[in-house]
Amino acid sequence: MRLLYPLLLVPTVLCSSLESRKFTLESRATNIDGSLPTYKNPEASIEDRIGDLLPRMTLEEKVSQLIQGDINGWMSALDDPLDNTLSFNQSGLEEMMRLKGGSIWGGYLMTYEKFVFAVEVGQRYLMENTTLGIPALIQSEGLHGFTNNGTIFPSPIGLAASFNRDVVKSIASIVSDEAEGLGINHIFAPVLDLSRELRWGRVEENYGEDHFLTGELGFAFVSGIQDGTRRNVTAGRSGGLRKRMAATCKHFVAFGSPMTGLNLAPVVGGERDLRSTYLPPFERACLESLSMMTSYSAYNGIPTIADKNILTNILRDEWGYKYWVTCDAGSVDLLYKQHFTCETRECSAKATIENFSGEMGGGTYTYLTLPDQVKAGQLDEKYIDETVKYLLRVKFTLGLFENPYPYPDYLKTIRTSKSREALHTADLESIVLLENRKNTLPLSKDIRSIALIGPQADQVTFGDYVFFNATLNGITPLGGFKQFLSNSSSSTKINYAEGCKLWSNDESGFDEAVNAAQSSDVAIVMIGTWSRDQTLLWSGLNATTGEHVDVHDLGLVGAQLKLVQAVKATGKPTVVVFVSGKPIAEPWIHDHADAVIQQFYPGELGGLAIAEVIFGAYNPSGKLPVSFPRDVGTTPVFYNYLKGARPMTDFGTTTDNGTLVFGHQYVLESPIPLWSFGHGLSYTTFNYTDFTLNPSTIGPTDSFNVTVTVHNTGSVDGQEVVQVYATDVFSSVVTANQQLVGFEKVQIPAGSSS
Amino acid sequence: MRLLYPLLLVPTVLCSSLESRKFTLESRATNIDGSLPTYKNPEASIEDRIGDLLPRMTLEEKVSQLIQGDINGWMSALDDPLDNTLSFNQSGLEEMMRLKGGSIWGGYLMTYEKFVFAVEVGQRYLMENTTLGIPALIQSEGLHGFTNNGTIFPSPIGLAASFNRDVVKSIASIVSDEAEGLGINHIFAPVLDLSRELRWGRVEENYGEDHFLTGELGFAFVSGIQDGTRRNVTAGRSGGLRKRMAATCKHFVAFGSPMTGLNLAPVVGGERDLRSTYLPPFERACLESLSMMTSYSAYNGIPTIADKNILTNILRDEWGYKYWVTCDAGSVDLLYKQHFTCETRECSAKATIENFSGEMGGGTYTYLTLPDQVKAGQLDEKYIDETVKYLLRVKFTLGLFENPYPYPDYLKTIRTSKSREALHTADLESIVLLENRKNTLPLSKDIRSIALIGPQADQVTFGDYVFFNATLNGITPLGGFKQFLSNSSSSTKINYAEGCKLWSNDESGFDEAVNAAQSSDVAIVMIGTWSRDQTLLWSGLNATTGEHVDVHDLGLVGAQLKLVQAVKATGKPTVVVFVSGKPIAEPWIHDHADAVIQQFYPGELGGLAIAEVIFGAYNPSGKLPVSFPRDVGTTPVFYNYLKGARPMTDFGTTTDNGTLVFGHQYVLESPIPLWSFGHGLSYTTFNYTDFTLNPSTIGPTDSFNVTVTVHNTGSVDGQEVVQVYATDVFSSVVTANQQLVGFEKVQIPAGSSS
Repeated sequence: MRLLYPLLLVPTVLCSSLESRKFTLESRATNIDGSLPTYKNPEASIEDRIGDLLPRMTLEEKVSQLIQGDINGWMSALDDPLDNTLSFNQSGLEEMMRLKGGSIWGGYLMTYEKFVFAVEVGQRYLMENTTLGIPALIQSEGLHGFTNNGTIFPSPIGLAASFNRDVVKSIASIVSDEAEGLGINHIFAPVLDLSRELRWGRVEENYGEDHFLTGELGFAFVSGIQDGTRRNVTAGRSGGLRKRMAATCKHFVAFGSPMTGLNLAPVVGGERDLRSTYLPPFERACLESLSMMTSYSAYNGIPTIADKNILTNILRDEWGYKYWVTCDAGSVDLLYKQHFTCETRECSAKATIENFSGEMGGGTYTYLTLPDQVKAGQLDEKYIDETVKYLLRVKFTLGLFENPYPYPDYLKTIRTSKSREALHTADLESIVLLENRKNTLPLSKDIRSIALIGPQADQVTFGDYVFFNATLNGITPLGGFKQFLSNSSSSTKINYAEGCKLWSNDESGFDEAVNAAQSSDVAIVMIGTWSRDQTLLWSGLNATTGEHVDVHDLGLVGAQLKLVQAVKATGKPTVVVFVSGKPIAEPWIHDHADAVIQQFYPGELGGLAIAEVIFGAYNPSGKLPVSFPRDVGTTPVFYNYLKGARPMTDFGTTTDNGTLVFGHQYVLESPIPLWSFGHGLSYTTFNYTDFTLNPSTIGPTDSFNVTVTVHNTGSVDGQEVVQVYATDVFSSVVTANQQLVGFEKVQIPAGSSS
Repeated sequence: MRLLYPLLLVPTVLCSSLESRKFTLESRATNIDGSLPTYKNPEASIEDRIGDLLPRMTLEEKVSQLIQGDINGWMSALDDPLDNTLSFNQSGLEEMMRLKGGSIWGGYLMTYEKFVFAVEVGQRYLMENTTLGIPALIQSEGLHGFTNNGTIFPSPIGLAASFNRDVVKSIASIVSDEAEGLGINHIFAPVLDLSRELRWGRVEENYGEDHFLTGELGFAFVSGIQDGTRRNVTAGRSGGLRKRMAATCKHFVAFGSPMTGLNLAPVVGGERDLRSTYLPPFERACLESLSMMTSYSAYNGIPTIADKNILTNILRDEWGYKYWVTCDAGSVDLLYKQHFTCETRECSAKATIENFSGEMGGGTYTYLTLPDQVKAGQLDEKYIDETVKYLLRVKFTLGLFENPYPYPDYLKTIRTSKSREALHTADLESIVLLENRKNTLPLSKDIRSIALIGPQADQVTFGDYVFFNATLNGITPLGGFKQFLSNSSSSTKINYAEGCKLWSNDESGFDEAVNAAQSSDVAIVMIGTWSRDQTLLWSGLNATTGEHVDVHDLGLVGAQLKLVQAVKATGKPTVVVFVSGKPIAEPWIHDHADAVIQQFYPGELGGLAIAEVIFGAYNPSGKLPVSFPRDVGTTPVFYNYLKGARPMTDFGTTTDNGTLVFGHQYVLESPIPLWSFGHGLSYTTFNYTDFTLNPSTIGPTDSFNVTVTVHNTGSVDGQEVVQVYATDVFSSVVTANQQLVGFEKVQIPAGSSS
């Protein structure tokens, strides 16, 4: 969803404290004998508590649980991130909690003090001043860092390049740490869409093109977000089931493959693609995720939010998923506004609730029509009951009925030294060395001078889903090189030149860039794509990646390629660094650069990490989670294509001097990617021996173990990602040409084995 | 399939006449009482004849019916089209008919005399020297002209641009006329694949992107091929069912949408796409087609030749299709070579025959394993029986048991004046006027001079599926302009310049082209794509369209765009003519040319037709059967996209001076096509009045009538294609944004109405 920073009318009633909000509780919240009801008993089982609470709820109270509320209902000046007025609107609060009190969107950029105040006010009102005292989910984003001004980590595509479950889990755990203390209990991440359609703007939010890698890393992320228990929550009889935070697997399902590449567009496919490609990462990662979010789009002609096969038959019945499912912002309205499978808001609400999902804000709140639909006999209340139960199960699992409040010491869990270390690791492990001709890299710290060139060289480029001005917390590559060389007591001189803007064909800066290269021993050219923070991205500022920013071409924009060519023409060794949120299709760079590094949108220490890799302080270990096509016209290029998808291979090409060399598949190009999934070089070399497969013969549903000894045969320590691929030699249906089925990242000192 | 001109070993036994081939018939071909068996009785019903014949056949005889034989079994020197030796190989003939005697591939370029001799020999042997006397299907290609040196008509994409069922039917009828006399009774056309994936090389073989238009024109083509009765065939009790020629609807089904655009690649989709998009044209056009051909590819993970849902459940059971289905050349082997759903030839043969298809040549003849599989109890003979019955039904319907021979006067039906007229009409009606700024066109015959520029200006460019050197029968545009101006007693001077080659970046001819433009009153630049005849196409010669020639880019190749720009820069009015087999994505030409004409690969009179259109001797009436994208990266662009496929429209662009104007859908382009399906201008104007819909309210399965009065409000006569589109305003599943549901082409004199 889009983060919202709406302009708000100033509330007319401002209350300066919590004192005035005491109401008499109705008898529904007590037992006839005056004893504590089961649902309030932390020692009771979760299922008993749900069974006790639901019958006590009115229809309106249930529906209120199903509609996402918003902290803007009682807080003001949310459009001003620096405003720290600790006051709220009492009538707004009451209205919000009456109609949309089950979950509260809090993803606004505001002072922590104000945010904590807002949550405290909201939860205390619910706990103490409503009949049943049901606490709310408090929600924010956290795809690669907590978006209420928390630490920003590499974009998911970069995290995936680490091929390291531990890295992903540690990052998610920090996201959770930073959010939890503030009273947030529900994070809208991870994204488990697959990057098979590269034009789509949200490729950077995914863990790449492969469903296995996505499932494994998704599971790590969900575990990192959820594992643990909130403070002051007793284990009780539910002990083993406790979670400290709800993750949200999204966008269920197949959202990442829109026809035309345009965000929200329908996805083409059938049941087989669904089950073999799109569902597996969710089944692997999300069965214990306390929440899932449905896709905006239609799959196989059915809007997913109303797809009984996907949401009921598969998710609920086959998988037994028992937690909360929410729609994405405004997506219920799309049934009558985009998909046209409903004519009315009522129909849209009914089609959605009958598949057991809640309604997010961002639309017209169609679920407000549900009580009347039930009363009119048009809707069976059982759908509402079941959906409320899914939500209550989340709340009981989190222990919110025991303690839904922010922690007083929330600052202690934000931007800690431990999280800085994990950030640094993630930024290093996300970098992929694509080419390294004649061992151009690493550079020696004794090198006389380097040219640092390009529009990405002195800029922090994060992906989408970061807060306004988040980049101010990041270090630019130029800053990173300076810091690294300074810390290394190196006297290497940096000749910096921007060369060109990311977004222009203007070549007036080329001369300066060429001069910088000519006066240096090596040139590093940093170019790529760019996104914006959630405020600027939606304000219309230019960008080439991010949500609702879809491209028709995967090459570099503007003068960037020419800049590389101009620098390379100096004859100086030229290292190209792509800083991007998706693969860049530039065969010339593949063919001519002396070295190529892929840095997917990094975290706050990305500028330092790239310097450390280039100078060999860190030996690169990242692998591509997504294949790099030669041109948008040769897509899709995902490695696990169905057998027969590259049936013949008589390539054509255009030579550097413009000669056309004709082939057939394609006439003037090749379907083979520049670099394929799983590719990534190291400064050392690895050798594999002692391969064993156990058992050597397996049935269709059997597991097997692969063991191998990996030797670091080079002269520097390094990490290797051991990747296991399987192929169905023959099968009853057409299967993938190859499929990743296992991977492990291992650290191996030079000369050692693992 | 690929037309084959193989190198043959010279047969070792040559017989110079038919005299030596008399054998005693076995008793299976007579009744016990010596009477004529029912299957030989022209007065018996077709079903009775099938029922009588099948039990008389041995297993080996049945299997022989199922395997495509080849005229090369008894004829020599097929690699030399001029060889006219009227001799044959007796042992080769016997062997061929014993093993592969049901249908005979004859698509070789050879003298008519030799071809007729070969057919006569083959059929007479079957009729008179085999036990049961079952005649063979004699097969060739005829997609847009009979490929044994018959008249070549516009490629199907051009025929579709006529939006004229009568044109298509008349062309098909001539194809049939030219083939029938030679003894051919089975034509491998029409192609009903949809051009939704424009990179695919075979786009020119289709009737465009829309299933309705494709179904209507396919039906017209099938009718044109089949309607009528072979000579000397009595109507008998089967009278109403008689056909004179078997058409072949191909490639069943969804073959035209390979992922990656590469020929043979798998097609992504589910049951809904299958039924709403890919099946309808076949259901409309082919239920009475005597033959169908299956696709090479897999749909939804199932190789189509082994897809029980498609071939048995839908085609046979739901549709009740009762005629012959053949696989494409070599495609059975793909089950163990490409799809890997079988491990052996035996498995591949079994998986195919169990869906009631015959096996074409071009592979390893896997069906030769069928007798042993039946004898081993691995295959139920019923599948063979049922499939043979489908084939026999075709032969009885054609009347081949009565007369399978060539006609002595076959020359009378080849290249007649009537067919020349139909060719001329087809070439005229296929031309589409895309842009006509300031009424640049038509040119006056009094114009002083024209520049005729470009690599297509003095070249005949046919699509694929034409015989070796077929282009020698065509007139080039330069020839056509000369002929037209001469016939018009015009003194207009033609300044011709090639400008550049189709296949090169060489600009050395630009000066001559610019000079030609500067010394003329108007410049006509003819550029585009190109294919080759079936000999050259498969020999490896360069091409940009045609079977197995798939592109990654839809723009002009080489120096062609620059040539247009250089000519336009002279300031002379510049008319661009695209001669191509698919849409060309060149926004600059859309934006800057004074007029743009689309001439899809024409027939033999294409060079004359384009002159007649440009000078207004014919008022253009063609409409696009396929949408023109702005770039390959904005595809698919078919007009009947699902609702929501262009969800937002904030376009970006690059201006002529290189300024980047950023948008979001796409960042630097637009998903809206340059010209959409159904578009086409005229030299006159039409106005619509009196629209009526009857009935005004309909149910989901009802028909309705639309009437409208069309007024020619301009000053010249013209044809208009009235197109009716429907939209499901609301529907239970996501439906097309709009869908063509009716069209009629009407001729309206200036000032009149229709």
